Amino acid sequence: MKTISSTSNELLKSFRKLKNRKERLESGLFMIEGMRLIGEALRTRAGMEYLITCPELVKSDYGRSLIGQAEKAGIEIIQLSPNAFMSLAAKEGPQGLLAVVVMQTVGFEEYARLGGVWVAVDSIQDPGNLGSVMRSLDGMGGSGIIILDESTDPFHPTAVRASTGAVFTQKIILSSTEELFEWKKEEQVHLVGTSCTTSQNYRKYNYPERMILLIGSEQKGLPPEYLDKCDAVVTIPLYGSVDSLNLACAASIILFEIISQHKPD
Amino acid sequence: MKTISSTSNELLKSFRKLKNRKERLESGLFMIEGMRLIGEALRTRAGMEYLITCPELVKSDYGRSLIGQAEKAGIEIIQLSPNAFMSLAAKEGPQGLLAVVVMQTVGFEEYARLGGVWVAVDSIQDPGNLGSVMRSLDGMGGSGIIILDESTDPFHPTAVRASTGAVFTQKIILSSTEELFEWKKEEQVHLVGTSCTTSQNYRKYNYPERMILLIGSEQKGLPPEYLDKCDAVVTIPLYGSVDSLNLACAASIILFEIISQHKPD
Repeated sequence: MKTISSTSNELLKSFRKLKNRKERLESGLFMIEGMRLIGEALRTRAGMEYLITCPELVKSDYGRSLIGQAEKAGIEIIQLSPNAFMSLAAKEGPQGLLAVVVMQTVGFEEYARLGGVWVAVDSIQDPGNLGSVMRSLDGMGGSGIIILDESTDPFHPTAVRASTGAVFTQKIILSSTEELFEWKKEEQVHLVGTSCTTSQNYRKYNYPERMILLIGSEQKGLPPEYLDKCDAVVTIPLYGSVDSLNLACAASIILFEIISQHKPD
Repeated sequence: MKTISSTSNELLKSFRKLKNRKERLESGLFMIEGMRLIGEALRTRAGMEYLITCPELVKSDYGRSLIGQAEKAGIEIIQLSPNAFMSLAAKEGPQGLLAVVVMQTVGFEEYARLGGVWVAVDSIQDPGNLGSVMRSLDGMGGSGIIILDESTDPFHPTAVRASTGAVFTQKIILSSTEELFEWKKEEQVHLVGTSCTTSQNYRKYNYPERMILLIGSEQKGLPPEYLDKCDAVVTIPLYGSVDSLNLACAASIILFEIISQHKPD
């Protein structure tokens, strides 16, 4: 295997561009880093285009076993010099493994097929929050996430890292609120909105087995016209001085209330 | 009032140093930014040493009213040119207000006096997580947070921002696990540990009104020798592929289970 050592190699340049959202959308690819995420991508048979490795930086048997797995799966392995590798790596303490993976998204028909609990996010700004929501959604056995309108990108490096692999296990729908509400009219879709001001306590609502939890932006929450279209709107009562919680924390509290209703034992 | 326009002014230099943890600890001061946090600091009568303002950047009546409040409270106001202000400001879209505030911490006797629900964090690394935990703790009506050993600093700018003011409402104890366990032996302290592997479901445990929830680091959780010293250890059952949740999300799920037991209606 040839080792690439020039940081201006064309392939490396194209990988580096994947830090940019527009380039990710155009190429349909995103980059992941570290053993944990790469292990999850291989385990879930995510469409891996390239496994990029720097043998000098791979210190563990597990890291080496991942290279072996990728080879067996027929994935192209690209070997880099430490210098070339570091020109791609974002993380401190690099583990010598990167991968370029195909973005996989699905359509609304996947909700109809799979059912279960989904989250729809409208105008979430922080990719770390989005990743943490995906992680909690996976943790409670959810099915997928619907990314609406101006929300941050689930394939943003920070979102992918914060998801700790949930980006590969959760189905992802990219859509608009308009489409969501159109589709809700046509199909049996139960939509539960969230708000900091309504009176329905999130613990008092009976969540159906098939549902979408709709979450608004960090700064503004959901606009009233979206709340009007929901089948119910729930809120987390607060007892201190803050008037809201971190978005990912609030989503997790509600998601784990839902699962504890669905699986009471 | 004299306007400082030199970025190399000695006072400004000393403020700029507060970005560094060592300097914060030595001076006992930290810096906060933005109208929301400064409003909370004034409302809770946090010890504000200086209010720093750049009139050209203060666009709202609320911002101007905060300056008036600070003046009335006898707080020293420092006026900066836009250039000098930007040399201190960390945030994009600065609101023209900064403040230098005295770190306020308390001792363990405050737990005995106040009671209620406290969180103790051991070796938390991420200041954003710590701030979000403080925000959720305030939101559920908690009393305070105990920062153990190598944990990140609650007065770190990211922690302060993520706390959305909870850094002023929650009592803060800086201590070591050794001291915590010593003190637990002497006093009636109910300690509930958290783990990803034990079998006690967090929803099945009856949390007392006075208690400390002990949380370990993002990477490793709590060491077994700490778990042994807890009165109970709870876990959040997971149903997907991820083997843990984001630390702040997990803490929030348990904290809101506790409050829903304490205030069932």
